Amino acid sequence: MGEIKRVKPRTLSGFMELLPKEQIEFNRMKGIIEHHYERAGFIPLDTPIIEASEILLAKAGGETEKQIYRFLKGDTDLSMRFDHTVPLAKYVALHQGELTFPYKRYAIGKVYRGERPQKGRFREFYQADIDIIGDGKLDIINDAEMPSIIYGIFKELDFGPFTIRINNRKVLSGFFEELGLQDKITDILRVIDKIDKIGVDAVKEELVNFEVSNSDVEKIINFISIKGSQEEVIKGLENLGIQNELFNVGVKELGEVSKYIEAFGVPKDYYEIDLTIARGLDYYTGTVYETILNDYKSLGSVCSGGRYDNLAEYYTNKQLPGVGISIGLTRLFYQLNEAGVIKGKESTPLKALVVPMDVELDMPIKTVATLRENGISSSIVFDKKGMKPNLNYANKEGIPYVIIIGETELNEGKVMLKDMTNSTQELLTIEEVVNKLK
Amino acid sequence: MGEIKRVKPRTLSGFMELLPKEQIEFNRMKGIIEHHYERAGFIPLDTPIIEASEILLAKAGGETEKQIYRFLKGDTDLSMRFDHTVPLAKYVALHQGELTFPYKRYAIGKVYRGERPQKGRFREFYQADIDIIGDGKLDIINDAEMPSIIYGIFKELDFGPFTIRINNRKVLSGFFEELGLQDKITDILRVIDKIDKIGVDAVKEELVNFEVSNSDVEKIINFISIKGSQEEVIKGLENLGIQNELFNVGVKELGEVSKYIEAFGVPKDYYEIDLTIARGLDYYTGTVYETILNDYKSLGSVCSGGRYDNLAEYYTNKQLPGVGISIGLTRLFYQLNEAGVIKGKESTPLKALVVPMDVELDMPIKTVATLRENGISSSIVFDKKGMKPNLNYANKEGIPYVIIIGETELNEGKVMLKDMTNSTQELLTIEEVVNKLK
Repeated sequence: MGEIKRVKPRTLSGFMELLPKEQIEFNRMKGIIEHHYERAGFIPLDTPIIEASEILLAKAGGETEKQIYRFLKGDTDLSMRFDHTVPLAKYVALHQGELTFPYKRYAIGKVYRGERPQKGRFREFYQADIDIIGDGKLDIINDAEMPSIIYGIFKELDFGPFTIRINNRKVLSGFFEELGLQDKITDILRVIDKIDKIGVDAVKEELVNFEVSNSDVEKIINFISIKGSQEEVIKGLENLGIQNELFNVGVKELGEVSKYIEAFGVPKDYYEIDLTIARGLDYYTGTVYETILNDYKSLGSVCSGGRYDNLAEYYTNKQLPGVGISIGLTRLFYQLNEAGVIKGKESTPLKALVVPMDVELDMPIKTVATLRENGISSSIVFDKKGMKPNLNYANKEGIPYVIIIGETELNEGKVMLKDMTNSTQELLTIEEVVNKLK
Repeated sequence: MGEIKRVKPRTLSGFMELLPKEQIEFNRMKGIIEHHYERAGFIPLDTPIIEASEILLAKAGGETEKQIYRFLKGDTDLSMRFDHTVPLAKYVALHQGELTFPYKRYAIGKVYRGERPQKGRFREFYQADIDIIGDGKLDIINDAEMPSIIYGIFKELDFGPFTIRINNRKVLSGFFEELGLQDKITDILRVIDKIDKIGVDAVKEELVNFEVSNSDVEKIINFISIKGSQEEVIKGLENLGIQNELFNVGVKELGEVSKYIEAFGVPKDYYEIDLTIARGLDYYTGTVYETILNDYKSLGSVCSGGRYDNLAEYYTNKQLPGVGISIGLTRLFYQLNEAGVIKGKESTPLKALVVPMDVELDMPIKTVATLRENGISSSIVFDKKGMKPNLNYANKEGIPYVIIIGETELNEGKVMLKDMTNSTQELLTIEEVVNKLK
């Protein structure tokens, strides 16, 4: 085929590509999330990565629209999904007659945003979402279920203690209505949302900049300073004596939700009401969630979500309220890997490496086939010759057992099982090996 | 927010989007494939869906180039992967110093080809690949391993009997060299590749059109008619008395590979040497594989692959021979679903539905939390009130157990477990339920 013109291999910046051990660990994390989503009765949904632009951009605007991967293929105006929520809205609107409600689905897959390349920012990244969608209405108690799923996942992921923070947007909105600050809610909430990053004094200053009176600033600070157990916070909110209806509905919702979180299995240490969190500014309408890893607070929220009134208003006039959470898996993995928290608990799923020592291959091959039939992940080596390179290989890859088959073993109808963790070895039948490794 | 301008929800043609029960079955199939790949010691690799166009198109040309999804984002010329092989080649070339060889990886993910929309053709589809890549060389016995993985997967997928067909491109090429037809190999192989579809006579006719002499046509037909057990086919090839070196290397390889397939656990009924299969015309250089579902022959090959001499010649001067197979999962699922073979063995992963009957929710919630902690996938209902709508729901979704908790049950500290398959019910403690459903 003549001279080949070579291209320098590279991977685009903002696109994560992992080495084998990292990939195994990434997949282990993904598997844990999936397992917990399924265990809680969520059904998988895998929507296309590409949709018609008019679908994905029905609502959009602002940053999203600028960041979207959008292009023409032939005459068709296409875009790549930038989250799982818009495709879910389309899906539910399109298939509403074929779904049973409440519809509980999970989606774990790649989404795309053309952000400015920056350390720890990705243009292709996994989001792992669950949502419960109601037909017309959705009982508030569903909101109490989400923290238990967050708890199960992060407990098993094992990155140390964490705190699930809960709030209710109606409480926030009602409170600001009461102060007559309803026109400034968006700005105020944006400032409050930053309190963890910038501190109380900077928040006060910014609020004054929005022409909030000093006395209102004090009321706001008092309000967001209400802390304690969920019972204490609810009591504190009730004691404010606010008559605003939205506020009171919010306090009631927050009370009901926080009341049942523990019944769902979340220990008290792992969740709290935090009146400063607001999340997305024009999307959530009730309960909101954030999750903080206590030892890695600088990561920000690693699992967030909330309640919304109407999922698919851009595609259908059917009222579809919902509640959901989302984990930005790619970013989470990257940050924890950088922090050295991901240690590669299992550096390989391989349990055993079969090494034939210059013998007829029939028996070694049957050995690896038997291991696999018994569910033991194993490889057989044909390319590396001799003991030493293969033991080195097993060591480097972290394969716990090497099964050596030489003339002696073959004559006895047995194999030599070498335990790489302590370098002991014993002569066993294949059945004995299977029983030991199973 | 004023009047909302609604967009009619739709999914692009050529993009598969499944209803819940189908998605569950699709994921079950995907899970089986992944399980078998991992059990055989393959490590996951998840490359980006988007690459620089110069990378993906380093080799391309022809159909691939026309079908590719390619676009500009800012100044960057981007393309979406159209298979897993080119990204693998780039990955191995880029990370060769960090990988251990033989490098065994699996990739299960979406790839993109802008084919003309047509029933059963997809523009976004899952490919599920494995490859073993050697550093400089790769022992031929590795080729004997692939059929055992195909066998394990399709046995468990359970779509009836199937046949793994094996051939060797060197046998084909050497044979045609011997006839002095080396310049026409590509055309002749393309014709032979169609023999299953168009029959022997049409093949003869097409060969004559390529100005193959009648006596050569007869030799070709005799050659591809050699059939029987692998020993018989090898003997038949040897008996042709061909002195061509490539041919003889090919026969030796084919003999070695077919000799060890059975040791790897594939029963003789499930594989055969078929001298008519050639697969991709300029890619494979040795062993080639096809897999036919005996009861659904019209589907064509459902798992194919082969041996290649040099994976990454467009990115590195390092010689990287390999052998691999690929399953086109999206197409396979679609076709089998159309054929009614996919029955939804498990229509839901949900094992139990907890139904509180107008009681305080604490105990019902603790029940579902306990089930989940014990690995039993379960949901609790807050939105549907009363017995009947919930039993209907469980029936429709195929949930095998409903757990009813009313006042009576609450007073006894027990729950009513209803077996939906036979409509019996019994009053049990939560522990008893866990033991029963586990």
